[in-house]
Amino acid sequence: MPETIDEQITIEKTKDPKEIPADDDLDFGRLFSDHMFMMEYESGKGWHDPQIIPYQPLEIDPGSSFCHYCQVTFEGMKAYRNEDDEIMLFRPDKNAERLNNSNRRMCMPELDPEFFIKAVKTLVDVDSDWVPSSEGTSLYIRPFIVATEKYLGLKSSDSYKFLIIASPVGSYYPEGLKPTEIKVETEYVRSVKGGTGAAKTGGNYGRSLLAQNQAAEEGFDGVLWLDGRERKYVEEVGAMNVFFRIDDTIVTPSLEGTILPGITRDSVIKILEDRGEEVEERKLEIEELAQAYRNGYLQEAFGTGTAAVIAPIGRIQWEDLNMEINDREVGPLTSEIYDILTGIQRGRIKDKYDWTDKVK
Amino acid sequence: MPETIDEQITIEKTKDPKEIPADDDLDFGRLFSDHMFMMEYESGKGWHDPQIIPYQPLEIDPGSSFCHYCQVTFEGMKAYRNEDDEIMLFRPDKNAERLNNSNRRMCMPELDPEFFIKAVKTLVDVDSDWVPSSEGTSLYIRPFIVATEKYLGLKSSDSYKFLIIASPVGSYYPEGLKPTEIKVETEYVRSVKGGTGAAKTGGNYGRSLLAQNQAAEEGFDGVLWLDGRERKYVEEVGAMNVFFRIDDTIVTPSLEGTILPGITRDSVIKILEDRGEEVEERKLEIEELAQAYRNGYLQEAFGTGTAAVIAPIGRIQWEDLNMEINDREVGPLTSEIYDILTGIQRGRIKDKYDWTDKVK
Repeated sequence: MPETIDEQITIEKTKDPKEIPADDDLDFGRLFSDHMFMMEYESGKGWHDPQIIPYQPLEIDPGSSFCHYCQVTFEGMKAYRNEDDEIMLFRPDKNAERLNNSNRRMCMPELDPEFFIKAVKTLVDVDSDWVPSSEGTSLYIRPFIVATEKYLGLKSSDSYKFLIIASPVGSYYPEGLKPTEIKVETEYVRSVKGGTGAAKTGGNYGRSLLAQNQAAEEGFDGVLWLDGRERKYVEEVGAMNVFFRIDDTIVTPSLEGTILPGITRDSVIKILEDRGEEVEERKLEIEELAQAYRNGYLQEAFGTGTAAVIAPIGRIQWEDLNMEINDREVGPLTSEIYDILTGIQRGRIKDKYDWTDKVK
Repeated sequence: MPETIDEQITIEKTKDPKEIPADDDLDFGRLFSDHMFMMEYESGKGWHDPQIIPYQPLEIDPGSSFCHYCQVTFEGMKAYRNEDDEIMLFRPDKNAERLNNSNRRMCMPELDPEFFIKAVKTLVDVDSDWVPSSEGTSLYIRPFIVATEKYLGLKSSDSYKFLIIASPVGSYYPEGLKPTEIKVETEYVRSVKGGTGAAKTGGNYGRSLLAQNQAAEEGFDGVLWLDGRERKYVEEVGAMNVFFRIDDTIVTPSLEGTILPGITRDSVIKILEDRGEEVEERKLEIEELAQAYRNGYLQEAFGTGTAAVIAPIGRIQWEDLNMEINDREVGPLTSEIYDILTGIQRGRIKDKYDWTDKVK
């Protein structure tokens, strides 16, 4: 267990606040709020000096291990403004837990989960004017840890920086949910058993770019990843978890150590089960999916993740097989799950799960 | 093909030179020379503004993509001072070629190979006083490229920095070649077909730390990696390529897309073949290795890489099987290859391969 951090977070406010864009002008992840959280770690001393400071460049020694060996972990989460104008987080305890799982896999120091949540809330509170309020908008929060020891030897770093930055983001679907078209990736692999697929670490993402770029050149929105061992089982879609509705049962790949344990994934499973749906977390062969399609049993497909929440899939190309799902329209269950989840997040639907967490 | 870079490299010398340590006091990769090379890339503009500047921290925006998605590549090479006091590089054209291969895999812009060599030589020349001269010492050179676009979306960056830093390093074997003890890693995986194992990108290295740390806790110097698909074939040892002498034949794993194509590996193969040794580049089952050991045919084993050049292996633990090789002494061929390769690098042995390349 990580040590409790008792230190107060010092706050240095910016003297030069930026102009906050209108909700309609928001992009994703290019503009950052006025402040950032930063905390240092050294072996023997632990995490120390937590502070909120004006958003600014990091001074990184070019010999820092993370520039070379990618000893980094991160999280993605959002702050929403609800209908009572309160700012809410969604299951931040799960982000804290997953960040520590990632840290263990990457040989990095764990963080006190309560302090993690406190740090996120403090930053969001300081930058509360940056939390937009229109439907679909939010303040995207990116906590991350980088190894900073100035050493080119290959070993776990002795020092780290934990940072939190935040970016106001517009609606992912300004014109309503829109199905994506994807191809099954048969050449490149995202992860394999024994690797880091279940950790949120940068290497998994940089490694995925070539397949994504090639798919884009072929006119697809992204790829459906197969397992690295047998190229037989469905794993993720792009950087999201994936769900299929097959013959009225919901199937999602089980967490076998190669798939990111998505917080949206977990929430969707719970909502579906509560609605009385049959949900199967299990290995899913791409051939089974093709067979279901051929037999007319593949009813819906969607990805889940923090950024999009729910991303309906309208078409899956597997070699020569073109699977059009629900006539390339958003499926009824997909749409309903999206409404329930965003409804809970924005406080329109009663949160019986205790998932939302007020910043103040 | 990358565009030719015609720009002159501007040189700004430090006003505050550091003290250069004595050869006996040199460590690996902690102290850096007085200068560094830096060049920028932007989409549409290409590589530009090559410069040598005083070694200094990078200003990195915390929203830069490489902090999150590890779109980074690097190289490792050394400058040696030969017996005529000339400074030599070893096969820098191969580093340029491999960096471009890595860049393609990671969706990063390629570099003009001739300019790459020119940049390395210019930096080494400016910092020529930092190239040590004692046997076994060298100036370790680390060229690397990082993605700098300030954007949290997952895509190839539109901007990059190419840097070269250099660190004077002491002898890897101050007391002569020393065999290492390793364990066969059966839980964690370094790479898998379709991944980035053949690219020199940080994710491969950060991902390997947990296995290395656990092996160290069990008293080993490192791990022997097996393939990610079947856990059956030998791939690499730590961050080095691996060679075995089995019944007077030299066997090294073939390059199947999961193994780094080592420049030392390639050089060792050519030297062995020239000596009339039978060299087999092929898939090698760990079970075959065990069988050879049991039958008394496993004569020698060693790793190859830029840092150690040759790393003799004295013991390999595979589950319950403890394989002691050549009575845990450095094997005769291992020792001879080390002498030939370092002899060529330092100019003691005539370089009939045209591998060495004078900085001036």
